[in-house]
Amino acid sequence: MRLSQLSEAAGLSPATVKWYLRIGLLHRGEQTAVNQAQYDRTHLQRLRLIRALVDVGGLSTDAVRDILSAIDDADRPVDDVIAVAHRACAMNAAAPPTEAGAELGDAFIRHRGWQVGADSPARSDLAAVLAALAALRSGGEDRSQAPDVSAGDAVNALLDPYADAVEPLARAEIANSPEDLSRDELVERVVAGTILLEHALTALRRLAQEHHAAQRYGRPAQTGPTARLRI
Amino acid sequence: MRLSQLSEAAGLSPATVKWYLRIGLLHRGEQTAVNQAQYDRTHLQRLRLIRALVDVGGLSTDAVRDILSAIDDADRPVDDVIAVAHRACAMNAAAPPTEAGAELGDAFIRHRGWQVGADSPARSDLAAVLAALAALRSGGEDRSQAPDVSAGDAVNALLDPYADAVEPLARAEIANSPEDLSRDELVERVVAGTILLEHALTALRRLAQEHHAAQRYGRPAQTGPTARLRI
Repeated sequence: MRLSQLSEAAGLSPATVKWYLRIGLLHRGEQTAVNQAQYDRTHLQRLRLIRALVDVGGLSTDAVRDILSAIDDADRPVDDVIAVAHRACAMNAAAPPTEAGAELGDAFIRHRGWQVGADSPARSDLAAVLAALAALRSGGEDRSQAPDVSAGDAVNALLDPYADAVEPLARAEIANSPEDLSRDELVERVVAGTILLEHALTALRRLAQEHHAAQRYGRPAQTGPTARLRI
Repeated sequence: MRLSQLSEAAGLSPATVKWYLRIGLLHRGEQTAVNQAQYDRTHLQRLRLIRALVDVGGLSTDAVRDILSAIDDADRPVDDVIAVAHRACAMNAAAPPTEAGAELGDAFIRHRGWQVGADSPARSDLAAVLAALAALRSGGEDRSQAPDVSAGDAVNALLDPYADAVEPLARAEIANSPEDLSRDELVERVVAGTILLEHALTALRRLAQEHHAAQRYGRPAQTGPTARLRI
């Protein structure tokens, strides 16, 4: 198909597609004349992956480029591509985690028996959360409301339910990829799963919180598709 | 304590604390002289909450202001404060979700029996993820690698494990707040829990994915605090 057809099929403007070609996010089509190229379904699929990463993943085009380069580098092991995707969507906390936060996070990872790299961005993310919780607590009155993260046992008690909830999901996400996928199919599946389903997971937690908060704090049911269906 | 002591206790520069006072994120101290005020532990606690929301939650000062105003508005029901916090950290997808994505998301929320507002930001987030997954799949070859979200049954099969994982967490987060907390204590706990533990949840999922990917795709163990402890 031609560029105009490709843009239309992807729901993008031709200018956007041309820009992705220019900055190298999208591979070139087959040149059929001086000013004309043919595109195929691989281009359409790539455009949809780019839009998913930008629109839903909230990633910058630089972060998308990092991920796509890793996908396109056939020598790169699958778990390394996953690490690149994790790095691209790590929260990049504005302040580095404190030493104490890092120690608590590392101890929890050991407690779970997880084998993760020393420089894994998720390791820093966890440390930053624990550092913030520790700071909130230390700043409180005698009866602070932040969860207790003052010692390893308290961290385990706080985080084990969360880890127990996500570990079977993560195991299934990795294990359920069919054996017979090509590497390209596999990495696309894993990257889309990692980034899109992370947003699904947080959206579902918020929806469940909203539901249970409405139950507990008892406001009248809001109007809306769901509320209307409840008798 | 004086402003210099408050800044030091919070680990912030005096200029930052003055800026928070000026833009109204931090309540004024008790004026003791023309150019001097006294601050107490409520100021320190508020500064730590601000930093947690900015550094770990990744929120803008505008978003933090929205949350703090909701917390400080004593007439605001707790579930409404939660809704404000959700709105502040919603992903704000760059593209509005498609009609089809919204229908699939709404159907899944009904399937779970969740009572959530029609304008809940998490509802749009879920719709955006489903729209992106549907687009990825429709763009693929015959055997696309994106999960099937072509119909309600397929969406339920895909998302139920995620919803099953987070629903007990969300229920406990809402239900376990002690009955005897003051409203201020309660909202601080809920806001910190909502935003900080969301980041803990996604970090833990990535750590577990990294662990299981290393197991399955079998690279040699990386060096690092955890790897070294594995015999």
